[in-house]
Amino acid sequence: MTVGEGNSAYGRKEFRRSKSHFTDRVTADGRDGWPVEPGRYRLVVSQACPWASRAVISRRLLGLDHALSLAVADPIQDDRSWRFSLDPDGRDPVLGIRYLKEAYDARETGYPGGVSVPALVDVRSGRLVTNDYQRITLDLATEWTDLHRDGAPDLYPAALRDEIDEVMADVYQDVNNGVYKAGFATHQTAYEEACTAVFRRLALLSERLAGRRYLVGDTITEADIRLFTTLVRFDAVYHGHFKCNRWKLVEDPVLWAYARDLFQTPGFGDTVDFDHIKRHYYEVHTGINPTGIVPLGPDLSGWLSPHGRQELGGRPFGDGTPPGPVRESEVVPPEGRP
Amino acid sequence: MTVGEGNSAYGRKEFRRSKSHFTDRVTADGRDGWPVEPGRYRLVVSQACPWASRAVISRRLLGLDHALSLAVADPIQDDRSWRFSLDPDGRDPVLGIRYLKEAYDARETGYPGGVSVPALVDVRSGRLVTNDYQRITLDLATEWTDLHRDGAPDLYPAALRDEIDEVMADVYQDVNNGVYKAGFATHQTAYEEACTAVFRRLALLSERLAGRRYLVGDTITEADIRLFTTLVRFDAVYHGHFKCNRWKLVEDPVLWAYARDLFQTPGFGDTVDFDHIKRHYYEVHTGINPTGIVPLGPDLSGWLSPHGRQELGGRPFGDGTPPGPVRESEVVPPEGRP
Repeated sequence: MTVGEGNSAYGRKEFRRSKSHFTDRVTADGRDGWPVEPGRYRLVVSQACPWASRAVISRRLLGLDHALSLAVADPIQDDRSWRFSLDPDGRDPVLGIRYLKEAYDARETGYPGGVSVPALVDVRSGRLVTNDYQRITLDLATEWTDLHRDGAPDLYPAALRDEIDEVMADVYQDVNNGVYKAGFATHQTAYEEACTAVFRRLALLSERLAGRRYLVGDTITEADIRLFTTLVRFDAVYHGHFKCNRWKLVEDPVLWAYARDLFQTPGFGDTVDFDHIKRHYYEVHTGINPTGIVPLGPDLSGWLSPHGRQELGGRPFGDGTPPGPVRESEVVPPEGRP
Repeated sequence: MTVGEGNSAYGRKEFRRSKSHFTDRVTADGRDGWPVEPGRYRLVVSQACPWASRAVISRRLLGLDHALSLAVADPIQDDRSWRFSLDPDGRDPVLGIRYLKEAYDARETGYPGGVSVPALVDVRSGRLVTNDYQRITLDLATEWTDLHRDGAPDLYPAALRDEIDEVMADVYQDVNNGVYKAGFATHQTAYEEACTAVFRRLALLSERLAGRRYLVGDTITEADIRLFTTLVRFDAVYHGHFKCNRWKLVEDPVLWAYARDLFQTPGFGDTVDFDHIKRHYYEVHTGINPTGIVPLGPDLSGWLSPHGRQELGGRPFGDGTPPGPVRESEVVPPEGRP
């Protein structure tokens, strides 16, 4: 994302996340004009962004990396937003563009809204297809099935969707988006309401997860992915930078073990770049960190410590198997790893 | 303090703490013109300030409260610095002034430096005597002895002064002042050097304190007071606001137990006002917290949990006794307590 994030949010008393403007879906039947097709689309992400990271994890778990290529934006946006300055000549090697905004412009002339990740871009035309962060991963799980690897898990099992949707709605409201409401609050009351809701919800999730390995059913689902992408950022950025500081994740034994369990599961931790995460939040949000200084902490070594959650049972990939190793070109560099 | 603290520090690349300008000493023999005398001086502090809090603790431990009265400034300074806006009509009831600066002006016309606490003010003339934060507590311990309560501890025992001075010098450099160097750094390198030194020193102190109850000897000394006033603020303000975030105090079992032991010792925790601490740092330093929002965290309840340090032996007050209860007028209000 960064629609309504960052300094632009300061004009309002309360932070509001923008709805995605481009909501075409890539489906098996291609009813929106965008059929699932290997090599046709490019997934543009920032490793810093929790909303984009959902898609990076889903793509790995489902083995879609051979069918859907990945463009990683610089974690530091400039005034034209997400850019490909990490690539040779500052251009995405597949799309040939310097700014993600160019794909937006190719889709709609003069679109006045923000530029956000994750984004799916049609490689041939260079046009943005969708930036619908709530939908993209669900479609990867349910519409892209023909291209899934052998042994891919079912991340959105039909029989459990009501429960998954319910859990995800609460997690979105209070946690995924809640930390932003706290961090971008410009008034004490708005901050306190958001921060209180964050920790009230985390306490409930901690209770729920005390006796069960995953949020819904006994396998990893989309609900776990969405909670994970916030938890993995919690101590690194939300605790200090967003003032969600009643306690650190490492102080809650259940949630901390749950997060480590997922982190150590192939497809989760191997996608996380703490360097991109920390630099993005601390350098970009000058409205809350004017010096742009990036903290040295927290100590990340604990992420690799034993979590003991196997004792709760559960079958991480259900009837499936873990994904293979990360593609060489997508391995997180040492400075981003614990 | 606030000499060289806060926004004024932003013009420099590296934070430098100003030396005290007024360094007269109040002594038993009155050689600087300021003899120790009951009721003659007023100690002006902010409960937010770690440098001033040393003097508040020493005064309590030594039972000097009947001889040296206390003025508590508003934790939020305005552009004329520390003020008595918590008092009726916004005036200190003993000195009759609205701003501590008035006592500075009475001492030296046109003094261009900053106004800092702790400050000793001569009640009769209204003139500042000293703002020498490094000296005031040592003199309370060694020059004010005739006015000490029965059973007052020896906080600066002659036989141990070399060792106490050595420990305090390291603690000052890397911890007391180190957190400020980290927090007010305007460049990444200066921040990283300071933050690294903070945690390197804390690790050494943690080692030192693993097998002994107090820093020097087997009783509480000035060295413990000076380390305590930083540790008690660590998770509340230095961890997040000053980015000293490799770990929280609560994550280091030794230092956390040491700090709790002192907190629960009469004369330490009963002087701590977390409300003043948090509001001061987060509201005043708009250069690093432009929104002025004061975080809800951290959870402070742990300060009252058992620490188990009695097992290490030690005699907190040596041959002396703990101080009695806090004077009713000086009890920290509920919102400031864990």
